[in-house]
Parts: sequence; C-alpha cells; structure tokens
Amino acid sequence: MKCAGDIDTRDVEELYINIDPIQAGGRLTPEALKAVIAYGDGYSVCDNCRKPFRLDYIQKPPIADFHAELAEWLGMDTARVVPGARRGFQAVAGTYVEKGDPVLLTALSHYTEFVAIEQSGGVVREIPKDQRNHITAENTAEKIEEVTREFHKPPRLIFVEHVDYQYGHIHDIRGIARVARQYDIPVLLNGAYSVGIMEVNGKSLGVDFVVGSGHKSMASPAPSGVLATTGERAGEVFRTTGARGDVTGRTFGIKEVEMMGCTLMGVTLMGMMASFPVVKERVLHWDREVAHSRIIAAALESIEGTTILSDMPRDHSLTRVNTIGSFDRVAQTHKKRGFFFANELKKRGITGVIPGSTRVWKYNTYGLTEAQVRHVATSFIEIAGENGIPVR
Amino acid sequence: MKCAGDIDTRDVEELYINIDPIQAGGRLTPEALKAVIAYGDGYSVCDNCRKPFRLDYIQKPPIADFHAELAEWLGMDTARVVPGARRGFQAVAGTYVEKGDPVLLTALSHYTEFVAIEQSGGVVREIPKDQRNHITAENTAEKIEEVTREFHKPPRLIFVEHVDYQYGHIHDIRGIARVARQYDIPVLLNGAYSVGIMEVNGKSLGVDFVVGSGHKSMASPAPSGVLATTGERAGEVFRTTGARGDVTGRTFGIKEVEMMGCTLMGVTLMGMMASFPVVKERVLHWDREVAHSRIIAAALESIEGTTILSDMPRDHSLTRVNTIGSFDRVAQTHKKRGFFFANELKKRGITGVIPGSTRVWKYNTYGLTEAQVRHVATSFIEIAGENGIPVR
Repeated sequence: MKCAGDIDTRDVEELYINIDPIQAGGRLTPEALKAVIAYGDGYSVCDNCRKPFRLDYIQKPPIADFHAELAEWLGMDTARVVPGARRGFQAVAGTYVEKGDPVLLTALSHYTEFVAIEQSGGVVREIPKDQRNHITAENTAEKIEEVTREFHKPPRLIFVEHVDYQYGHIHDIRGIARVARQYDIPVLLNGAYSVGIMEVNGKSLGVDFVVGSGHKSMASPAPSGVLATTGERAGEVFRTTGARGDVTGRTFGIKEVEMMGCTLMGVTLMGMMASFPVVKERVLHWDREVAHSRIIAAALESIEGTTILSDMPRDHSLTRVNTIGSFDRVAQTHKKRGFFFANELKKRGITGVIPGSTRVWKYNTYGLTEAQVRHVATSFIEIAGENGIPVR
Repeated sequence: MKCAGDIDTRDVEELYINIDPIQAGGRLTPEALKAVIAYGDGYSVCDNCRKPFRLDYIQKPPIADFHAELAEWLGMDTARVVPGARRGFQAVAGTYVEKGDPVLLTALSHYTEFVAIEQSGGVVREIPKDQRNHITAENTAEKIEEVTREFHKPPRLIFVEHVDYQYGHIHDIRGIARVARQYDIPVLLNGAYSVGIMEVNGKSLGVDFVVGSGHKSMASPAPSGVLATTGERAGEVFRTTGARGDVTGRTFGIKEVEMMGCTLMGVTLMGMMASFPVVKERVLHWDREVAHSRIIAAALESIEGTTILSDMPRDHSLTRVNTIGSFDRVAQTHKKRGFFFANELKKRGITGVIPGSTRVWKYNTYGLTEAQVRHVATSFIEIAGENGIPVR
C-alpha cells in the first residue's frame, strides 16, 4: 500500500515484533502520533511565538514548561532540544574545542562523536576498554596522562557512553567523572541508549552535559534530542550571539550560537513533548525491560554454539550475540544461506535482524510485552531445533 | 481540544486563513500528512538501510532517488537534506571559514547566517542595500574591495538571500554571482523564501550552493531543508570523515563530517519526499501567487495612510507594509489599542498578523485560493472603513 506517490506505507511496527537495535526506543507513543498529526505543518509551534522570539520561551504549546521539566528530570539545570544527539555533541565540541585540541572518546564511542570532534578541528584519542568491554575510571586516568604527555596539554573534553551501542554495557560514569574532575575536564554523557528508557541523573553521575536522543530512546520523531547541562556550563554552551551587522548595526538578541537560534520548530518537538509523560513513567519500569532481556538472552544461550557477548546477566535491552557456532553453521549449507535466519524470524512475525546476519549481531528487546518476549525466545529455540542445532 | 496531555490540538490552518509571513510555504500537503503518519516513529526510514549505511543510499523508501531528483531540480549536481536551512549554512561555513576569516552577508541577511559564521569563528561584514532595499552587484564589488583592504584577504564566502525576509525582494543573484566569480569567492544562495515556491536553478544563477528550507517553503515538517552544490564543491562540503580511532583503529566509512552522518532519519524527510511532486508542480504556478499578492497589496494601498514598503508591483508573496498612518492611528484611541486590528482580522477568519502590530508588519499570501485572496483584500478595506480611515 502506498501512503503517497511511490512511497510505501510503513507497517513494520504494526505487522511485526521489531527487535532492531536502534529502533526500539524511538517508536512513537499514541500520544506522540496524535501530536504529530496536529503539528505536522512546518513552523507549527510558532503561532504564539512572542518576544523575545525563541523556541524555549513559547508558552503555548507549553514548550517553556517542557524545557524546565526536561532539565529537572535529567538532574541538570538547563536543557535545550536539538536535532538529534549528534547535534548536541557538535554544540559542545563547537564551544570548547580549538583546532588541534585533544578530546577523549572511548573505544566504544559512536561515530557521531568522532565526526563532531573532527568538525570542530579537534583530535580524538580513545580510552581503551578493559577485557570485559567496559570503559573504566582507571583507563580514563591513564589515557588522560598519556594524552597530556603527547599534546603537552590535557584533553579539552571527555565524551563517554552511558550505555554503548556495541555491547549495551552500562559504564562506570561516576568513576570516570570523578577522575575527569580531578583534571578539571568537562564530561559529556552520551545517553542515546539511556535517556528515555532508564533513569538518568546527570548531577548524581557527576557529568557536565547529558545528551539524549529523541528518535533513539524518547519515543519521538527524527531528528530530535536533548542537550542538558549545569548552571556553570549553560552560559558557555548556550551563549547568546555577539554578532552585530557592520552596516545595519543589527544585533540578534538572545539567539544562541550553538543552537543556531531555534532548533525543533514543529512536529519533532511536539512528538517529544507528547511522549514525555509516558517516557517519565516508563523509565521507572526499567527492571521489567531487564527481566525481558534476560529471558531472551537465556534462550539464546541455551542454543549450543551461541554466546552472548554482552554482560551476563543482562542489565540492558540492547544485546550483542555471537551465533557463529550455531545459526551461521546452518547458513553454510542452507539453500538461502545466511538469509534463512531473518526469513525464519519473519515467518514468526519477528523483524529487526539484518537479513543475512548470522555471525555477530545485535538486538534490542526494549518495549516488548511479556507475551512478545516469550514468543521471541521460543522462536530462537524453535529455529535452532528445526535446523538441527542442539538446545540445552 | 487536547491532542495529548496538556497540549492543545493545533487547528490554525483548519479554522483560519493564515497570512503569517513564515508559515505559508510550510503547510503540509495531504500527501505529506499521510507520510508523516506512516513514518512518525523515530528511525522509521532505517528498516532497509544496508551497506554503506548512509541515509542518501537508502532505496526503500526511495530516498536515494529523491536526493538525485532534488539536485537536478535545483540545477545542481549533489544534494543533501539537512535539519533546516540554518544547518546548511553551518555546513558551508564549517567547511571554508577559519577563525578570523571575513565572510560577506548582506544588510538583509537572516540571523541564522550570522550565527553560522559566528559559530565557525568568522567575522561578518554586510553588503549594504541600495535605496530600493536591494542588494546589488555594484555594492557587492565595493564591499569585497573594502573587506579585502580591511582584512588583507578577500572574503572567504558570500551568503546572499535569493528573496529576503524583510521585504520579500528578489535580488540580482546573477549579477552578484558574476562579481563573486571575478574574485573567486564561493556564493551560497539562501533560498528559504524561493526554493519550493519559485523555480530556482543554482547553475543558471551562477551560485555554488543552494540552501532551501523544508518547513518554510517546501511543505515539510520541521526541522528540514536542503543543501545542494556543484560537483566541484561537493567533495569539499560533503567530504567524508578521516577520523580513525587510535586504540581501536576504527574508521567510519563514508559518513560525511558536515552532515554528521545521517541527517533526517524519519518523519521530516518523508514529509519532504511526499510533498516533493506537489512542490515541483506548484513552483510552475508562481505567476498565480504573484497575482494574488498584487490584489492584496492594491487593497492595502487603497487605504489612506498605508504604504507597501516592498517593491511594487509585488513580485513575491511576502510583503512588508507600513500602516502607521492608518491602522496605527486607530490604535491610538481604540479601547483595545493595537490589538483591535488582529481582533478584527480574526473575526473575519484571518490570522497570522502578530497581535498588537499596527505599525510596520509583514504578511504572506502564499498558497491562498482566489476566494481567500478576495476575502483578505476586502477585509482590510472593511476594517479601515469601519474605523473611519478613508479608502480611495
């Protein structure tokens, strides 16, 4: 079915149980879909924009209140919405990084952090992961020392994943931030896989910036996200423009340089706002999501030749699994080769595993119901059994 | 009526004739609203993202085709979608401007161009407007010479409005670009008020970059926009990342630094794509929009003490008007003061003039039907007559 012109209607979330690693937390709530319909038009939130003409001052719809609540909810002092987490990284990098400055990322950092630093002219160095694939305070301290020797100055910033995209590991942010504070280096928390699905309190973690992704974990349309910070840092990253026209003498009031003025002027922001009450509630039930993740990880581990590469027992819904000794062995001789696996899942109403992947892959169980979790777990075991893989 | 939580349903476009200066060209088409509903979920366009994993390579939905068509339609070689025109300015500034470099904007430039240059460390100089409030080739040449003397180097870039936000004037881009070429300075066309409502051909205008706004003029949700360029410049502004992890050795393939990888991963892009066939058709009927603009401008000018400040006869739907000698005189003694004017318009089903404005204000007639145009024209004249302002 076409929704418009040559564009097929998307019905993945209606027809399938979707365990795609990046899509799970960004499915809209029914509330968000209603807001999306009501605020689809371009500058839809600007009907009642009055002086001083900035998005976060708009009272109707209640955008100003939302900004205040968002900051408080993240345990920070000030928050702004941004077109995706990456634009939050860019704003922080743009504020602090001068050409040639070293910036610490980690061995598990997302590519968008690399390009944010590259865009600002900085030089990336990675904090190594330990043998458990964790970023530790100890490795952070060592890397700070190493970089300081190399560049004759300490790293300008540290960007660290709260939960990384590779393993879904929850890292020791408090320990890392404590080390960073000893060197007076600001820390940015990449909360793309935590903000909106787990409780996150930036002050309690000791970080300077919290970045979240609306479309990844806050049940919001893309591109959307949040950048929250402390009172101390807000004046830096949210500094207002100092530009002045040499001919006209124009100045531009309270427009913020790194935000480029207003950011999300319509459907994206309204989706975030409409989902927010649900999001605030759902983070309180993270234990349920962890329980679901464990059920599916246990099912996979019961299949001979299968190893969960993420921390066990699972403490996050995003999981990395190695099926080289199980499903990939089947793929070697199956007439559909590696595609048999995604096909078998699809027959059972499950999607989100890249077709052809049977070696090392990821899935995300976030937001599934109890019944869906049981069905996914059973499906993995069934597919193994039907293809002659022993199940313990 | 609430659409979600404490958020009122937006019904401005359903209940009123909206002549807001910035909203007219960004109202969704019915096709876009259908796509918005189908693709509301966060990463909705990523279902079939395969190697090399970049937005503009996705075949289903037909995002790759859309990118090619968009470039061709703008008379350029390569196009990317961006989260608003301002992010297009930022990408170009980020590519070319080093700290302290002079960049030419104009006396009619939008604030987002100023912050883009400020963000990249550049120094803005304005090309003066002439007495008719136009940016001319002559003034451009003079300013280039002046800046070159001041900075001991020529401007690094010139950003020029195709149609400016203050008067809705169509500027002599060909002439300006010809001058810029003599000095070998790249020119960016800000097409926020042209791309999507008028025919725009970047190569024929002689510019290096064309930037358009989805939510301002392409019937698309916010934030969205386009940055298109020539084959020569594409390798610069769309350069791919050179980042490499020092510990992991990771590289990040064909992710583009200034785009920060992918840009519009869901509803915003799908809204643009769904509206695109309608947008391509509607730019061919610009003459109709100009005729409508003239009807309303004529009605306003027939009201004593009223002056159209934009070019007459009107050649754009965005218009600046001075009613200090008419509606503002009424406001002096009216019990509702300046608010009487927006109130009277609202009674007649017309919205989009900032409540309280009766001195110098702007309106946009884009997209109104013939009957709506007649009604708006008659309404201005009626409000004048009922308040004792002579009408010629």
